[in-house]
Amino acid sequence: MNSKTIKTLNPRTGDFLDNDYVLSTPNDLNEKVLDAQLAFTVYRNTSGNERAILLETIAEEIEAVKEEILDMTTLETGLPAGRIIGETGRTIGQLRLFAEVAQKEFWVEAVIDTALPDRQPLPKSDIRKCLVPLGPVAVFGASNFPLAFSTAGGDTAAALASGNTVVVKAHNSHLGTHQCIAAAIARALERCNLPKGIFSSVIDEGYELGAALVQHPGIKAVGFTGSYKGGTALLDLVSKRKEPIPFYGEMGSVNPIVLFPSALKESKTVSNLIGSINLGVGQFCTNPGLILTVDSEATQSFCLNMAEAIEQSVGEVMLNKAIFDTYEANMAEISAESAYTLLGQGIKVTDSLAVKPCLALTSGKKFLTHPKMSQEIFGPFSLIVLCENQDELSEILMKIEGQLTLSFMGEETEFEEQAHLVALAQEKAGRIIFNGVPTGVEVGYAMIHGGPFPASTVPSSTSVGADAIRRFARPVCFQDAPQSLLPMALQDDNPLEIFRKINGKWCQDKI
Amino acid sequence: MNSKTIKTLNPRTGDFLDNDYVLSTPNDLNEKVLDAQLAFTVYRNTSGNERAILLETIAEEIEAVKEEILDMTTLETGLPAGRIIGETGRTIGQLRLFAEVAQKEFWVEAVIDTALPDRQPLPKSDIRKCLVPLGPVAVFGASNFPLAFSTAGGDTAAALASGNTVVVKAHNSHLGTHQCIAAAIARALERCNLPKGIFSSVIDEGYELGAALVQHPGIKAVGFTGSYKGGTALLDLVSKRKEPIPFYGEMGSVNPIVLFPSALKESKTVSNLIGSINLGVGQFCTNPGLILTVDSEATQSFCLNMAEAIEQSVGEVMLNKAIFDTYEANMAEISAESAYTLLGQGIKVTDSLAVKPCLALTSGKKFLTHPKMSQEIFGPFSLIVLCENQDELSEILMKIEGQLTLSFMGEETEFEEQAHLVALAQEKAGRIIFNGVPTGVEVGYAMIHGGPFPASTVPSSTSVGADAIRRFARPVCFQDAPQSLLPMALQDDNPLEIFRKINGKWCQDKI
Repeated sequence: MNSKTIKTLNPRTGDFLDNDYVLSTPNDLNEKVLDAQLAFTVYRNTSGNERAILLETIAEEIEAVKEEILDMTTLETGLPAGRIIGETGRTIGQLRLFAEVAQKEFWVEAVIDTALPDRQPLPKSDIRKCLVPLGPVAVFGASNFPLAFSTAGGDTAAALASGNTVVVKAHNSHLGTHQCIAAAIARALERCNLPKGIFSSVIDEGYELGAALVQHPGIKAVGFTGSYKGGTALLDLVSKRKEPIPFYGEMGSVNPIVLFPSALKESKTVSNLIGSINLGVGQFCTNPGLILTVDSEATQSFCLNMAEAIEQSVGEVMLNKAIFDTYEANMAEISAESAYTLLGQGIKVTDSLAVKPCLALTSGKKFLTHPKMSQEIFGPFSLIVLCENQDELSEILMKIEGQLTLSFMGEETEFEEQAHLVALAQEKAGRIIFNGVPTGVEVGYAMIHGGPFPASTVPSSTSVGADAIRRFARPVCFQDAPQSLLPMALQDDNPLEIFRKINGKWCQDKI
Repeated sequence: MNSKTIKTLNPRTGDFLDNDYVLSTPNDLNEKVLDAQLAFTVYRNTSGNERAILLETIAEEIEAVKEEILDMTTLETGLPAGRIIGETGRTIGQLRLFAEVAQKEFWVEAVIDTALPDRQPLPKSDIRKCLVPLGPVAVFGASNFPLAFSTAGGDTAAALASGNTVVVKAHNSHLGTHQCIAAAIARALERCNLPKGIFSSVIDEGYELGAALVQHPGIKAVGFTGSYKGGTALLDLVSKRKEPIPFYGEMGSVNPIVLFPSALKESKTVSNLIGSINLGVGQFCTNPGLILTVDSEATQSFCLNMAEAIEQSVGEVMLNKAIFDTYEANMAEISAESAYTLLGQGIKVTDSLAVKPCLALTSGKKFLTHPKMSQEIFGPFSLIVLCENQDELSEILMKIEGQLTLSFMGEETEFEEQAHLVALAQEKAGRIIFNGVPTGVEVGYAMIHGGPFPASTVPSSTSVGADAIRRFARPVCFQDAPQSLLPMALQDDNPLEIFRKINGKWCQDKI
């Protein structure tokens, strides 16, 4: 065992916190993946009900230590208590949603084509399929959601719900939070009398263990939420494996917002936008980093109002030193680059890693000739682009890379007049929002949190919502199988009472 | 334009056929992808009904030239007329299945979470999602299915049904067949008054254009059926793209068959197995290349019967020179390698590229120490492995790589006694067959033709059956969208009358 340890930083004081966290070794990693493989042979055969009980128990165990989590996570992330309380609730809610999904088992997508023994020239077999789990899944904790997209976050909940085992690479910015949650999961596994190997985690100072994890032959899928740089580096390693596996990387975007004339006149447009830009100190992958509108008389007062609002905004501390440094470097670059006009800058709290919210302005022409302007700046920053006309705005949307979200603000008649932009948005984004801001991602059945590259590496998948369960499953089909050998979801008498597609029609029928 | 041409070979005579086929240039390729991108902006907005009409019209146009296809394809592939007639019917059937799927539009997987405007602390938005097409898709024709997995094969039909445009890389072994089909599709597009760019194709002597095609930034997905070598080479190129795209490679497998004692005594076991091994001169990706059983007194007479049956088998011609050469080299290697016992060899017709069907025998111990034995030999060959006991058989299944299919033959009580093998099969194969042979892949709703790597590169996808449509689609989600901007599948009054998941429940309700 390694005796080397690391600490986490308090972003408010800039000092290291007391606790020491033991670094994992390559041997530890290997053992954990092997344990996850072994545990998979047991866990894959559990019923949806058993998995639901595990997820409910994890939710309970997290709820039982929520005060401890609150103390630790606020210290480690600098996020306000309200946010941590909300995110703890969301994390518990996600676990319970996936418990429900696992318990009802409709996620298995049962499809049955019954036999036609008298068909000519050849009889037709009975063919049935449903989804099965993949195996051990690697999950990378995200810095900006220390709970909801980390140790027991969406990917872990989805993987466990569908019968996979999980090895988490803990995020170094919140190792104390990670340990609280990992311990809660371990207690839940013990209470449910399930193998410990179903969930484990590794701690690493640098990138070596993460790299080894995604390249380990025992790992069958990877869930990652983080930066473009980190995501594409891991994707590159995954693509060098002998056995290709899905790498679900969610890497953020600038989430363009298109303002039609009527929205410029609405007073709540400014407050909604500024609120969204500042939410979580701008550290959301759905942060609105790009605001597009056609220049007119109305844009002048809109920009003035935006400037005024940002100047009254108070910047809080960033999640860690690296994020802080990158934001400050970006701000320095923007000040020095004449293509940007600094529209306004907020103030900041006096704590160590605090930053100033900021708005910049540019023209459509300049935006089109400065590719850097379309790249995400992680933090409370947004760029307003004044386009010369509607065509220039369309051109920008046409040229922009894949996005998690794309928002339109205005009146229905304006949307209808520019329906081609809404059609175009379907090629560019995972979620299209009308008269709303992109921050605030509902955890439900219909949510898509993903989008064309570089927003995500697998645009056909979502990392939020019930359908995230699919990313860690694949279909298996049974031909002329005896009833006793079929999964319950495919048995004649439909013991799970789920909807199944039988000979092409969805129904709850028995065969 | 290139003036360089190539010809196709008649595998029966070994001579080149008369027709010349003009090779495409890199410029041609680029133009075709650009046309496909442009056509996509039109085609993506067509209704399911319009796409269904296109697919029906393609089916009609193919049916109208089926005599011409029969003549050309038998000449180019050496396959018997009955097989070509059957495969033409299957290709037309596939097009019509996808027409039905497109027309009914239930494939779009509409999911709706209605708004909760009074929810505390924040109102909940209305969120709706459905699948949308990806863009231009590259399809690689397969040598062994000159119709059903080639120019207008499963991938093309699935891509067109879901609103994508298609660029086919024609297979060099059947360029005449390709031209017949491509012309039929062009006529159908004209009759339907749709842009020509919706379907195009390139012809190449070597691998350059195929490589350029999968790396072209305009291509958004690739469908490939072929060899492990070809598939992994293309996968490698795809993984070097800046924008990752799905590469659906289906690369064949040895399709193990496990014989339990009762099956050894059934006389039809031998005839079924030999029939499956010889079907299409063994040139199916589902060819049963590996037969596993526990050694006993019964295996002796089983092996004798198998030997006798293979010796009475008549080998026909292989599809092309490369496949013929590889098979002959494999047979020479097997004769020279002492770990194999040659169990029996058939005879062959006198035509040029004809081969002899062949059965070999080995022990479980030798199989476990000769990794080459688990690799596919494309052609009418199968290896019988006599295991010392049930544990050795389990060990072999545990160690074997991903397979398209895994079959069990025996009685229900035998399957139940070895239920752990059926559970294991779910980790190893895409389709698990009971008392049937793997050849003969039903085109239906429940079929999975795919499987863990190296059987396929994306085990969560199928290349046969209605769900193949999903591989060329991704979900988009709409938040608080006005009715007029929503796709029909998501509109309140459910104009398509499809099943939708509303607040977690499947139904045909209006909102």
